[in-house]
Amino acid sequence: MVAPCQCSKSSSAVKAAANLEDKYLSDDPNHPANLICELCRLFYDNNWVTGTGGGISIRDTKGENPNLVYIAPSGIQKEKLQPWEMFVAELPDEKLLRTPNDCPPELTKSYKYKPSACTPLFMSCYSMRDAGACIHTHSQAAVMCTLLWEDKVEFEISHIEQIKALPRLKFNESTKKIEKVGSMDYFDKLVIPIIENTPHEEDLTDSLQEAIKNYPGTTAVLVRRHGIYVWGEDVWKAKVYNEAIDYLLELAVKMKQSGIPTVRK
Amino acid sequence: MVAPCQCSKSSSAVKAAANLEDKYLSDDPNHPANLICELCRLFYDNNWVTGTGGGISIRDTKGENPNLVYIAPSGIQKEKLQPWEMFVAELPDEKLLRTPNDCPPELTKSYKYKPSACTPLFMSCYSMRDAGACIHTHSQAAVMCTLLWEDKVEFEISHIEQIKALPRLKFNESTKKIEKVGSMDYFDKLVIPIIENTPHEEDLTDSLQEAIKNYPGTTAVLVRRHGIYVWGEDVWKAKVYNEAIDYLLELAVKMKQSGIPTVRK
Amino acid sequence: MVAPCQCSKSSSAVKAAANLEDKYLSDDPNHPANLICELCRLFYDNNWVTGTGGGISIRDTKGENPNLVYIAPSGIQKEKLQPWEMFVAELPDEKLLRTPNDCPPELTKSYKYKPSACTPLFMSCYSMRDAGACIHTHSQAAVMCTLLWEDKVEFEISHIEQIKALPRLKFNESTKKIEKVGSMDYFDKLVIPIIENTPHEEDLTDSLQEAIKNYPGTTAVLVRRHGIYVWGEDVWKAKVYNEAIDYLLELAVKMKQSGIPTVRK
Amino acid sequence: MVAPCQCSKSSSAVKAAANLEDKYLSDDPNHPANLICELCRLFYDNNWVTGTGGGISIRDTKGENPNLVYIAPSGIQKEKLQPWEMFVAELPDEKLLRTPNDCPPELTKSYKYKPSACTPLFMSCYSMRDAGACIHTHSQAAVMCTLLWEDKVEFEISHIEQIKALPRLKFNESTKKIEKVGSMDYFDKLVIPIIENTPHEEDLTDSLQEAIKNYPGTTAVLVRRHGIYVWGEDVWKAKVYNEAIDYLLELAVKMKQSGIPTVRK
Repeated sequence: MVAPCQCSKSSSAVKAAANLEDKYLSDDPNHPANLICELCRLFYDNNWVTGTGGGISIRDTKGENPNLVYIAPSGIQKEKLQPWEMFVAELPDEKLLRTPNDCPPELTKSYKYKPSACTPLFMSCYSMRDAGACIHTHSQAAVMCTLLWEDKVEFEISHIEQIKALPRLKFNESTKKIEKVGSMDYFDKLVIPIIENTPHEEDLTDSLQEAIKNYPGTTAVLVRRHGIYVWGEDVWKAKVYNEAIDYLLELAVKMKQSGIPTVRK
Repeated sequence: MVAPCQCSKSSSAVKAAANLEDKYLSDDPNHPANLICELCRLFYDNNWVTGTGGGISIRDTKGENPNLVYIAPSGIQKEKLQPWEMFVAELPDEKLLRTPNDCPPELTKSYKYKPSACTPLFMSCYSMRDAGACIHTHSQAAVMCTLLWEDKVEFEISHIEQIKALPRLKFNESTKKIEKVGSMDYFDKLVIPIIENTPHEEDLTDSLQEAIKNYPGTTAVLVRRHGIYVWGEDVWKAKVYNEAIDYLLELAVKMKQSGIPTVRK
Repeated sequence: MVAPCQCSKSSSAVKAAANLEDKYLSDDPNHPANLICELCRLFYDNNWVTGTGGGISIRDTKGENPNLVYIAPSGIQKEKLQPWEMFVAELPDEKLLRTPNDCPPELTKSYKYKPSACTPLFMSCYSMRDAGACIHTHSQAAVMCTLLWEDKVEFEISHIEQIKALPRLKFNESTKKIEKVGSMDYFDKLVIPIIENTPHEEDLTDSLQEAIKNYPGTTAVLVRRHGIYVWGEDVWKAKVYNEAIDYLLELAVKMKQSGIPTVRK
Repeated sequence: MVAPCQCSKSSSAVKAAANLEDKYLSDDPNHPANLICELCRLFYDNNWVTGTGGGISIRDTKGENPNLVYIAPSGIQKEKLQPWEMFVAELPDEKLLRTPNDCPPELTKSYKYKPSACTPLFMSCYSMRDAGACIHTHSQAAVMCTLLWEDKVEFEISHIEQIKALPRLKFNESTKKIEKVGSMDYFDKLVIPIIENTPHEEDLTDSLQEAIKNYPGTTAVLVRRHGIYVWGEDVWKAKVYNEAIDYLLELAVKMKQSGIPTVRK
C-alpha cells in the first residue's frame, strides 16, 4: 500500500487549519495533530491500518499542557486524516476539549465524528503507564502470531538483535511508577501478553488493564485475532517500539513456519 | 509496484481537461473522473491491476445527476489513466453520454477507446444494489483463495476483527432494497460467493447477478481463477470494503497454509 | 524497494540534456531515453533490477527513424540512470550512432560506459520479431519458477484470467513475420520456453534465438537461475506483457507451494 | 515501509546546514553526510533499518581528505536522519573531528548524540580492507539465513546470475592489500562467513576481524540472529553489493523452504 503523496494537500490543510484559528492546531509538523496524520499515512503504507482499522493517540508531552491528549476519529480512512479531524481531551478526567464536529460544515460536510473506539484503551496506557503516545494496528504479523500460538497467553522471543530496541521497564519505589531503566539485552526474553478479543473494542479495557498490571515489563499487548496495542514515553518511542515489535512478530511467523523455536534454550 | 509520482502530470492533465470545456470533467479532486485515476494508481501499487487488469466505475452520487456513471476504459494501463479517458453513461438505460473517442486527436492519438469489459457487471451492481461505486481487481489473494478452496462455492471467515469494517446488509420491506443497517460483528461469519470464470468477462453477468440475488448479505463476489468484484454505497465505502476484504483474503491464505481453519466453531 | 523521488532531478537532467544539444535526447517524457529512465526506476521498485541487474532497450517506433534503438548502459544502478547515459544504435546493421562516452567529462566523470551485456539478446528480439522494446529482469518469481520446474524446459500455466493480457501471435504468410492477431484466451495454455544460463550473458544469444524460432507463440524467454526476457510491439506493450507474466510467475510459485497444478486438465 | 517524502525537508535541512557554515556539510547531494541520509531512507523502505536498527558509514573517498569518515549516530530513527547529525572521524587514528553535540541547541534540543555502536566494526572494514563505505542492516533475509543454517558458519550459494554483481577479491603481493580484480562468475560459489552474535555490538569486533582475515574473498559478514555487514570500495559499490547479497539471501530462504539446495553440485 502506498498512500498518494500528500505534499501539497498537507500544506493546504495546514493553512486551512490556520484559518480556523484553532488553538489545538499548529503549523509545526511536530504538533500532535499533524504527527497523527503523518504516522497514519506511514502505517497505511505498512498495511497496518487499511480498511479504517487501527488508531493512534498522542499526548502533547512537549507542549504547554502535557495533559492534553489528541485522538484520531473512529471509522475514517487513516491515510486521509486531516489535523482538524482530531479530538482533544484533558487528563486525568478525560474531559473533551475539542471535537471536529465544531468545525465549519464546509469541512465536516455534516459528518458526525466519534472519537476512536480505542479511546478507553489509550486512556489506560496514559493513566497506568504515563505513556506519551499509544498506537493500535491490525498488523497481519500480530494477528498471525496470536493464531500460530492460539493456545498460549504470551508471545515470547529471545536472542534476536532487534529485541535491544525495546525498553527495560522497572517499578520505581519512590515515584510508584513503571519507568524505563535502559534497553533490553540481546539474550533477554521478550514477553508480550495476549488477551482474548471481545465483540466491542471498549470491552477490551478490563483485560488490557489486567495485562498491563500483570506484565510490568511490557510496552505492548497483543489482542487475539485482532491486532496489537503499543505505547511509549513519547510518540517517537511508541513508533520505534511498534516497528521493532512488528519486525519481531514478522520474523517469528517465518521462524514458526520453518520449525525454528522463537525462544533459544 | 510504485507508480511514478503524478503530482505535476495530474495538474497538467486537469488543465488540459479544463481546456476541453467538458462538462464531465472538473478541477475538483473528488470528481469521479479524477478519483478513478487516483484509485487506479493506488490499486496498481497494491499489485491489484497490473498488466491492464481490473477496473473501476464510480456513480456521481454527490453530483447534480446521481444517475451518471463514470467508467474506466478497457485495456489501458491503469496507473496512467487520465480523467479525459473516461466513459460516462446514464442510468437506468445505460445511455452513453460521453466517450473519450470524441476528444481531440492530440489527446487520443487516434486510439479507439472501448469501455471496460466489466461494464455489464458494474451495471448489475448499480441496478441490483443501488451501488455508488464498483471495484474489480485481479488481487492474488483473491485468486489464491478461489484456488485453495477450489471445491467450494463460498469463501468463509469468522472471528477476525477486520470483519467489522464490512457492512451488515438487510432487505428493507418498504423500499424493496438491500440496505446497510450497520456493521458486521467480530463473531459474524463473512460469506463471499465464488462464481466460476468464463472466457469472456461479460459472460460473467448472469452468474454475478445470480450470486447477488442469492447472497443478499454480500458486498462482493469472487471469480474463480480471476479476481473479485466489490461494491459500496459510495466510492469511499467501496474502497474501504475492498481493502478490508483483501486484508481478510490475504490472512486466509496464510491461515490455510499454516493449517488454521478460517471459521472458528 | 522505493527509489528516491526524482521529480526535481529528472527535470534538471532534461535541462542538462537540452544544453547538450544532442539530437538523441528530448524534453518529451515519451522519448525513448527518458522512458528507459522512468521504467528502470519502476522496475527497481519491483525488485527486478536491484544490484545493477537487468536491462532495457527501446526502439524509437514512433520517431522519425524507427530503426533507432536506445540501449541502457551496462553495470549502472538502474534507478539512477539519466537520459544522456544511453547508447543509440541503428538497425539492421547495429551501427553505434551515439555513446555516452562522447558526453563532456563533467557528466561522465571519465567513467567508460559500455552498452548492456544484453545487447545481442535485445537485437535478436528486434531482428527476429520486429519488437519495439525488450525488457530483461532478474525477477525472483522468474528465477524461482525455473528452479521449481528445474527438470522442465517450458513453464506452463492455464485458466488464469491474467493470461488474457498476453498476445496471440501467428506467422503471417504474406509478410513472413510473426504478428499479433489478438489476445490469448482464459483457457489457453501459456507456454514460455526456459533456456539454460551461460557464464557470459552474450553467450545466451544462440539459445535465445533458437527458443524464439521454436516457440513462435511466445513473447518471452525464461533463463534458468537468471531471470527473463520479455518483448513487445512497442515499449508499453512490452511493459504490460512483462507485468502480466510476472504476475503469473508469482502466482505459479504460490500454486506450486500449495500443491496446485498450474495447468488445469 | 515507505518513509514520508523528504523533498522539501531535505532542501531546508541543507539550507540549515549551510547556515551552520560547517566545513563537514555541503549542498552537494553526493556529499557523504547527505548520502547517509538518502540511503538510510532507502534502507528504511526495505525494512532493513526499522526501529532504529542498522547503520552506515561513508569515507569521503572523492573529497580533499579521503581519510575522513562520516558515521551515523546511534539509536536515531534512520529515515529521519539529517546531515548535521553525523559524526566525523579521521583515519587511521580515528580522531573525532566533528560531533553533532557541538551544533546549536535549537538543532540538538539538548539530546546527547553518540556515534553508532557499529563504529569499531566500520573501522575494521576501513583499516583491514581499505573500504570506502560500510553498511549494516537487520535484513530479515539475513537473519533467516543464519537461522535456517544455524549449524553452519558459512552461507553458500552458487549458479545464480546475481552472483555476478559481486567483486572478485585477491591479495595483491605488491600493495599488500586485498583488491578487486574483477567480478564473480555465475558458476562461482559465493561464501559469506557467519559469526555468532554478542550482547554488545562492539564485542563483535574481534570475530568480525577474524572473519575478514580468514575470508579474503568476502565483502560481507553475516551476524547470527542479528543481520549483516557489507562494505565496498566506495559508497555506491557498497550499496550495490548489499542489494545483490540481500537478493541472494532472500532467494536462498525461498529455495530452502522449497527444498532446493543453494549450491549446485
